[in-house]
Amino acid sequence: MPFNELRKDYILNRWVVIAVERCRRPTDFVKNKTVRARDGVCPLCPGNEHMTPPAVLLYLNRGGKIEKASDYGDSRPKDWLIRCVPNLYPAFTPPKPEEKPSIIGEVERENLALAVGHHEVLVESPVHDEHPSDARITQLIYVINAYMDRLSELYSRQYVRYVSIFRNHGPEAGASLSHAHSQIIATPMVPRLVAEELEASKEQWRNKGVCAFCEIIENEKNSPRLIAENPDFMALAPYASIHPMEFWIIPKKHRSTMLGLSEAETENLARIMKACLGGLKRLLNDPPYNFGFHMAPQSEAASYYHWHLEVYPKLAIWAGFEKSTGMYINTVSPETAAEHLRGAIQ
Amino acid sequence: MPFNELRKDYILNRWVVIAVERCRRPTDFVKNKTVRARDGVCPLCPGNEHMTPPAVLLYLNRGGKIEKASDYGDSRPKDWLIRCVPNLYPAFTPPKPEEKPSIIGEVERENLALAVGHHEVLVESPVHDEHPSDARITQLIYVINAYMDRLSELYSRQYVRYVSIFRNHGPEAGASLSHAHSQIIATPMVPRLVAEELEASKEQWRNKGVCAFCEIIENEKNSPRLIAENPDFMALAPYASIHPMEFWIIPKKHRSTMLGLSEAETENLARIMKACLGGLKRLLNDPPYNFGFHMAPQSEAASYYHWHLEVYPKLAIWAGFEKSTGMYINTVSPETAAEHLRGAIQ
Repeated sequence: MPFNELRKDYILNRWVVIAVERCRRPTDFVKNKTVRARDGVCPLCPGNEHMTPPAVLLYLNRGGKIEKASDYGDSRPKDWLIRCVPNLYPAFTPPKPEEKPSIIGEVERENLALAVGHHEVLVESPVHDEHPSDARITQLIYVINAYMDRLSELYSRQYVRYVSIFRNHGPEAGASLSHAHSQIIATPMVPRLVAEELEASKEQWRNKGVCAFCEIIENEKNSPRLIAENPDFMALAPYASIHPMEFWIIPKKHRSTMLGLSEAETENLARIMKACLGGLKRLLNDPPYNFGFHMAPQSEAASYYHWHLEVYPKLAIWAGFEKSTGMYINTVSPETAAEHLRGAIQ
Repeated sequence: MPFNELRKDYILNRWVVIAVERCRRPTDFVKNKTVRARDGVCPLCPGNEHMTPPAVLLYLNRGGKIEKASDYGDSRPKDWLIRCVPNLYPAFTPPKPEEKPSIIGEVERENLALAVGHHEVLVESPVHDEHPSDARITQLIYVINAYMDRLSELYSRQYVRYVSIFRNHGPEAGASLSHAHSQIIATPMVPRLVAEELEASKEQWRNKGVCAFCEIIENEKNSPRLIAENPDFMALAPYASIHPMEFWIIPKKHRSTMLGLSEAETENLARIMKACLGGLKRLLNDPPYNFGFHMAPQSEAASYYHWHLEVYPKLAIWAGFEKSTGMYINTVSPETAAEHLRGAIQ
């Protein structure tokens, strides 16, 4: 019997068994057709604005132009295109204006800190179940612009050290609301995995004098793991994918954060996200997935960190082995994943 | 609004928000009664020994004494009490005798190695659905003894660097077979999380001159996180639990591996596992869970590493935030978890 391959991530010291012996094909993961019960009343649908805390950001169409606003007093515009609200059950909460700076963002003891920060829900569309692959490009551009607006705003708070933007799609991937939305969490410390990526990127940059992700773009552009590309972005199945059908979207231009995308770049990001998420949806009958933006928190990382988006289809279960060792088993090789995703992209 | 607590693990640089604002009670996680379809023919049930590869270890009752054996030739004893077989779809596979040592256990390139090792299924009982909480203590003692037999055997192979023993219970926790079983995976490198625990334990031991887990036992014995104890073991909900209702079982005697447990210690481990897993089962109607033994691979860690068992009930979904940051959100505090588990232990 030939051996499976044990592969290491591009930069992290994270290993995965590509267990092709199990001979799983991507189509083994096609989601069974399920008629999802429509939630009762959706608190994120237009007309139900009173069911959420007041919006911190609204995109309104005013005479063909986008006007940015927020809810105030009793005003709750219902004709929004994008609506960003604080989470009703926040994991992280902002300090009140009167709270002393000393309590904010401080580690209380070596093993305790206050969960100061923000936890927001970004409603991506007035249309309840508008999957990114079904949305118009202009709507996706609004979403990306709103991400950038919230990033700028949240990073301006002195107690915020990191801002995570992520999306959970489908109840199996942890989405408790089915209305199209992303979440934004601002934390008072740089999270573990982000810190590890920053450290590893910095080390590679020091040792080789080249950014790890710039090198990935160069090495993978003709590889069997390439899925799609356009002038500004590349989508690929990473060499040591830890999830079946995992893919990453990487900007070709080296930058440590998505802040400052040009209009053309924003449109190209929208296009490649729509294409790849659409391919995944068609291929596996709208499977659950998570995605998360990986960006550097601080300006000092500008030289060595390269922002990107990681998409994790939720097709397998991490069980006792993965959880107690941090080593993974993936039953679909990234080469197979890329081949099928390429075929499913229209 | 008061802030949630952000807590750090005893030794790892891993942080979790204890999100009590969401006011989840343990009983919110009671599993719906589901009549699980019985698998067609169970390949792990007595009488179906031909459906698996030959056993590498059998416990047979011979005149009231346990005789250890293995399948050979066409011999397939059917009256076993414990049966350990190679996994039909192994992630890691052993080298053939004729394979050159040079290909074994070597990292091929900096990001590629061969998945040389072992992947075994340890059938814990002839009784198809014997949950550890329903098993007799003598049967659980056989299971623990069989773990130790396989540990000794696998660590004797020169290409094995680490042996992971874990259990997946319920399909939601990744169990593809419902017959009571554990799995054993032997890997050609020390996995990431184990390496991190070893490093952190060593550092604490160097800095403080005391083992981190010996200190946990001392600090938690009168804490609200204590769940159960007996002369040799303590069960507690860890201070920075990343799973709702997570608990750990820790030996009071400092040792880096379970190898060498005395008869009395083995029985006390069986008793506390039965009690705690039984409490979890009663409290939440047989929920899915994973558990994994954490042990040091090498003898040099004897002074600073302290073996233990970590049990992760599968009650929540790690979604985009957890997966892209390595920071966790737990909606049940360990103090609440311990209170309810204490109440459910008979």
